[in-house]
This record gives sequence, C-alpha cells and structure tokens, in this order.
Amino acid sequence: MDCEVLAIGTELLLGQVVDTNSAWIGERLAAAGIPCYQQTKVGDNHGRIVAALWAALGRGSDVICCGGLGPTQDDITREAIAEVMQVPLRRDPDLVARLKERFAGREIPEMNYKQADVPVGASPILASAGTAPGLACPVGEKVIYAVPGVPSEMREMLVNAVVPDLVKRSGQPATIRSRFLRVWGLTESKVAEVVAPRVAALEAPGSNTTIAFLASATEGVRVRITAHASGVDAGRVAVQALDKEEAELRALLGEAVGGVDDEGLEVVVGRLLAESGLRLAVAESLTGGLVAARLTSVPGASTWFAGGIVSYGEDVKRSLLGVGPGPVVSEDAAGEMAVGVKDLLNADIGLSLTGVAGPTSQDDQPVGTVFVGLADDKGRSGEPGRRSSKADVLQLSLRGDRQLVRQRATTQALDLLRRNLMEQHFRTER
Amino acid sequence: MDCEVLAIGTELLLGQVVDTNSAWIGERLAAAGIPCYQQTKVGDNHGRIVAALWAALGRGSDVICCGGLGPTQDDITREAIAEVMQVPLRRDPDLVARLKERFAGREIPEMNYKQADVPVGASPILASAGTAPGLACPVGEKVIYAVPGVPSEMREMLVNAVVPDLVKRSGQPATIRSRFLRVWGLTESKVAEVVAPRVAALEAPGSNTTIAFLASATEGVRVRITAHASGVDAGRVAVQALDKEEAELRALLGEAVGGVDDEGLEVVVGRLLAESGLRLAVAESLTGGLVAARLTSVPGASTWFAGGIVSYGEDVKRSLLGVGPGPVVSEDAAGEMAVGVKDLLNADIGLSLTGVAGPTSQDDQPVGTVFVGLADDKGRSGEPGRRSSKADVLQLSLRGDRQLVRQRATTQALDLLRRNLMEQHFRTER
Repeated sequence: MDCEVLAIGTELLLGQVVDTNSAWIGERLAAAGIPCYQQTKVGDNHGRIVAALWAALGRGSDVICCGGLGPTQDDITREAIAEVMQVPLRRDPDLVARLKERFAGREIPEMNYKQADVPVGASPILASAGTAPGLACPVGEKVIYAVPGVPSEMREMLVNAVVPDLVKRSGQPATIRSRFLRVWGLTESKVAEVVAPRVAALEAPGSNTTIAFLASATEGVRVRITAHASGVDAGRVAVQALDKEEAELRALLGEAVGGVDDEGLEVVVGRLLAESGLRLAVAESLTGGLVAARLTSVPGASTWFAGGIVSYGEDVKRSLLGVGPGPVVSEDAAGEMAVGVKDLLNADIGLSLTGVAGPTSQDDQPVGTVFVGLADDKGRSGEPGRRSSKADVLQLSLRGDRQLVRQRATTQALDLLRRNLMEQHFRTER
Repeated sequence: MDCEVLAIGTELLLGQVVDTNSAWIGERLAAAGIPCYQQTKVGDNHGRIVAALWAALGRGSDVICCGGLGPTQDDITREAIAEVMQVPLRRDPDLVARLKERFAGREIPEMNYKQADVPVGASPILASAGTAPGLACPVGEKVIYAVPGVPSEMREMLVNAVVPDLVKRSGQPATIRSRFLRVWGLTESKVAEVVAPRVAALEAPGSNTTIAFLASATEGVRVRITAHASGVDAGRVAVQALDKEEAELRALLGEAVGGVDDEGLEVVVGRLLAESGLRLAVAESLTGGLVAARLTSVPGASTWFAGGIVSYGEDVKRSLLGVGPGPVVSEDAAGEMAVGVKDLLNADIGLSLTGVAGPTSQDDQPVGTVFVGLADDKGRSGEPGRRSSKADVLQLSLRGDRQLVRQRATTQALDLLRRNLMEQHFRTER
C-alpha cells in the first residue's frame, strides 16, 4: 500500500507559489511508514485533475489531493472527484449548519454553499478552523483524500485524520515510529562525525533502528531516529527503541541537543526560565522583534517573559536603553542594551542583539556582523548587588541575505541563552 | 505543444528537500508562452522514472527531466531515458576530453566517467560550470530534456538551451504574463463577488485575459491576472492587457487593493510612511513583536520606523506606556498604549495591539478578542497640540489557534494603518 500526492492549482505550475505542501505531506507519510512513490501537480482543469486521479488509482495507490476546495469558480476538486467516483454531489445538512454557525447570522454568499457539497459515498473531514471541510472518498479498495491547500488547515487534517486512517487501513501490525532530536550550534557534517559510532552500530544485522540527518538554513540540524517493530506489542517496542537510541545520541551530543520533535528553541528556553523562576527581557535592533515574537509564540510566556524593546532608531537605543556615545553596532552597545533592558523592564536576565542585516554595511561593520549581549543578576533578589552593570557579549559573522541574517541571529541568540540557562541550572543543582 | 516537468530524487518525495526547481521552470515556461499542464516528482527508481516519462510522452508532451545526472549510484536518469528511447548509451569522446580537462591531471574516479555517457541519438547540453552535461533526447516528434538538479546549473541550461529550443520548435512567438493584486480586509468570496462583472466580461469570446483568486489564512487574497498574447509584439501586448485589467479591478476594489505581486503590507505601509515623512512606533502585547519584525524586514525601515515596545508583562504596560488601572485587554488600554509608545519613542504615529491569543481567556475576554489602537499627531510638528492624547481603537474578533490569532491580528493592524495612511495621503493631496 502506498499513497501519492496530487497538488492542484494553476499557480503551482506557473511557479507563482512553490508547492511546499507536498514535501510536508511526504515527510509525514515517511514517518508513518506509508511509502510515497509519486507526487504530481496539475492546474485548475477538470479533465486533467480527473486524468491524474485515474492515473494514480491505476498505479494502485491511494491519493491525497491538496487544494481546490475553496468557494470560488476555480475550486473544482469536489466535482473532479465526484466524476472519478461516478456519483453526483449532495449538499450535506450538517455542513450547511456549520457554515451558518460560522457566518453567525451574517448573510452567506451563495458561492460558499458549495463548500457543503460532498460526493455521494464520501465523508467530510472536519477541521477546527477555516471554512473548507476535507473529504475522504472511497473508490473501490482505494481512497482519495481531499484536503485544502491552506497549509495550516491541510496540516491539521493530515495529522488528525488522513494519516491515522491510512495507517489503520494499511492493516499491518508493523509500526514505524520516528523522533527528532533538535541540535543547535553544530554543522550537519559535524553532527554526522560526532554520532558516527551510532550510525555504524545501527548498521549491524538485526537492527531495526536507523538515523538520518536533516539540516536547515536557520533552524539547526535535526537527527531523525526511526524504529521499525512488528507484533502485537509493536508500538511499545518501537518507543523503547527510540528511547534507547535517544539516550545514546544525547550521550554523544551533550548540550548541543535542544528540544525533541517540534520543540523550538523558544520552547526549551521558556521551560528553563520557568524552572529557574527567572524573568527575561530582550532588546533588539537588527532582528526588530523576531526574538520576542518567537518567545511569545509559546503559550504561557507571560510567566517568564517581561517584554522587549525594539530599539530600531539610534535615538531609542540611547534615550531608552542608555547606550553611550560611539557606534551602535559594537560590543559595548550590545552590553549596554542587555543591561539597559533588564533594568528598564525589571527583569532578571537581559538579552540584546545589535548588528548589520544589510543590504548595506553600517558603522564600518560588514553585513552579517552581529553582537549578542547577555546580562543577568548574578546575586539574585534580596542579595546586595541586585543590579549588575556587566554583560557577556558574543560576536558573530553570519552569512546570507537580510532575512537569513535576521533569522540566524535570532536562533543564535536564543541558543546562547539556552546554553547559559543550562549551565546555571546545572550549577544550581550541584 | 506543451512541456511537462519531471523532478527526480527520493529526497523530494521524503520532504527532505523542497522541489523549488519545478516552480522556477514553470515560471520560465509561462514567460516563454510554453504551456505546462503537469509536473511530477518520482524517486531514484528506474521503473518509475521510465513509466513517468512514457506517461508524459503519452499525453503528447515534451518533458524537462530534472536531477539524477550526477556520478553516484543513485543517478540513473541517463539509463532511464535510454530505455525510453530504446537505444544503448555511448561514451562521448568530447565529453571524456572535457572531463579530463576539468580534473586537470588528477585521477578521474571511475564513477565520473558515466557523466560522459549519452543515449545514442541524443545531444549533450554543455554548461559552463559543474561536471554534468545535460541531454536533449528526441523521441519521435517529442524531446526529453535532461538537466541537473543543482539549481544554478539547471537554470543556466534552461535559459541558454532548453527554453530557446522549445520556443524554436513551437514555431510561435506566444507569451503568457501574470500580475497579482494583493487585496486586504475582504474574504475570498467577497472579492469574487465584487469583481464578478470582470470575470463575466473576460469570458467573452476572443478574450485573452483571465482572473483567478488565491486566498491565504493570514495574508489576504491575491487576484491573479493572466494575459496571453502572440505575434512579434507579444510581450508588449500582454503587458498592456495586464495594465488595462489592473485598472478595471482597482476601480471595483478601491482601497482594498494594497500592493502588487510580492509587495506585503509592510512594504506598502513603509512606502506610505516614507512619502508622508512620518515616523511610526508600535506597542505590542499579544503579537509580541510580530508587527515590528514584519516592518523591519523591509530594507531601509530605519527612516520611517522608530521602534517598538513589546509590553508583554502587565507591569510593563503600566510603568512604561502609562496604561491606567483597569483591564489590559480593553479599548482604553489599547488607546493608552498607542499614545504612550508614540510619545515614549518620539514618533508621529503610535500603533498598538492588546488582546487574547489563547489558549485561555483573559480579563473576561474570549480568545480572539483584539483591540488595535492608532494614535497620531493631527496637528503636526510646529503646530500647537503636538502631543495628542487620543487614539482610534478598533475591536476585532479573530478565529483560529494562538498562532493564527497572532498572525491575523498582525495583518489587520497593518491594514488599519495602511488605510489610515492612504486617507491622510488623500487628504493632503486635495
């Protein structure tokens, strides 16, 4: 049993939108042990959608169909699937009720009613957000799953409905489980070198576990552990294998391992701050709010995040944060910003970033030069010396264009904070 | 005559690499007037590559095959094409000589010699860089073009060899051009309703222009205008058609149209601020820096953006921005934050956001409740009343999870600012 992906949308063929959905779906299918041998893109054209669906079914595959479920004239996925199923569409009363609920008394545009249409024999897949339900459409032994092209809606349906249904239908007692370790501050080849003994060990006959590396331009390296198991107890056995391999890899990688799976640096930093009872404040220049935005994406951030100053204008750095005369892209300025924001927002730790994102150089510093400052109150509340006026400053040379430099500066600053908090944590425990 | 794209590589199906090559090729084909009706991805598997090539040829299409031309064991595109052509491979002496030149006396690894292999009847496509030549492989009336997966090498061959050959073979100087209008503050179905007269007009016989809609969960609606033209003057005719249709649509959509093509709200807002000579400051609570981060993604933002306060903790709102007693998720608090940040950062306009991103309610307000405040100095510099203490506040009810609410609040706040700046601009011009 395998599953193909059919992405629908003329904008994808014209290159106006890059189809990232198919890649994301491919990754999820692989992690769930469902092979994916082909992915196809076609435009908003009835005949070609129908032909592509028949071709995939003819190869004996299930299909995840992505896009074309919206309310407008060019959204024709429902009709194409109905033709493949050789059934008419029916208007689903529950979906109409849902639509009315969503419009909350406002008039529903006539066009939107088609989002309540379902091919006879198909079942709707409901999502918490968005107006378009997905569809699960049986065709003989195979199923065409239709999901919206909006990534957040597509992802929710994939994780909650489509992948579990595929796994259930595959009927194999075998299971494949994956776990990602998030590694920060090392290149992909360095990670591969450090964990080489484990790669070698897992190549031994009888091993049901494998390791793969996925590097990203800005978000560190992910080490994927995949465990295969079969039998009635397959799930538990696979998880045990993942736990064992995670421990082996952590022993080799040490504090370079940040989070697991989808845990970003902001989640790890937030947990460490909450555990230490410390409150953070940030002062940002070149990143312009990216660090604060990532931290506040974590639910409950208000318990450990006081706030931030986006000191973009030079006058703001000097008047609000007390940066002295001299260049604002410098070690001194970064230190003053970190101490300044900590004191201004009455926090325990101040994190600061100043640097040159480009496109042009500044203060005689080339694009990519970044200073990250970190100030904390070594002797904490109650003790004398509550206000420290010193900060540690790290200088970075980052490569890439404006957006990459900003993203890389953000992750490096959060990783510096993470390592610092782990050390403190360790010191406190001893 | 049309041309499909076949991207080859197991890493593409597993989602470890996003296939951006196909989108780029699609854009080039459209610009050259060559229709592209289907794009396919398959893994490094001989049988499936052969089947995908036959399927495309069976649809009467030429094919651009991307990837699998390297020297390693999993590079098998040459062999697959030779099977489709039903010919053997021959080792090309010119390509061997090129290879020797490139290795400049060093020993050539045995594997690399396969890059000098060419199916009998095919012609090599030479590139200035990289070691892998491309291939032009005639099959009956059709041609399979094979190019490397490395983007820089692929692009060079496409521009210099493949597209010119396709255009020459098509025998017609037709062109397709597209333009996007970015629409804010209206749902996709509302946009479709408003521009329905144009959709109907363009369906008339002889029309060479079409309209399509692309909605996003957080970034408004894009209206795509596509114009087809042929003849020696095709490029100019197509651009004229786009200009004409853009004017028609703007007449219907009015100030809902923000930018064109890739222009985000932050770019439009930045341009309007720069034109008015005004400086902006933002105070963010639930969005936690997202508004500031978007604004500072625009190069040169420092001329019109003073900075921001991420007033996440309640104490920061009160001590730094002068928010009075009473709930911090309220119309009053939003107004005080807008005025407070404008004055604190010595700006002309203050924009503020306070609200409930979730997962839990706050100050008796449900998740999704957001107040956006906008304060400006009506009587500007020099005039009395430079410091205004009043702000306009807009209340929103946004749907979705924490991240969606934050993203939607960000775009709605930027759109409010955009509309306000456009009005001011308009008033000034009169």
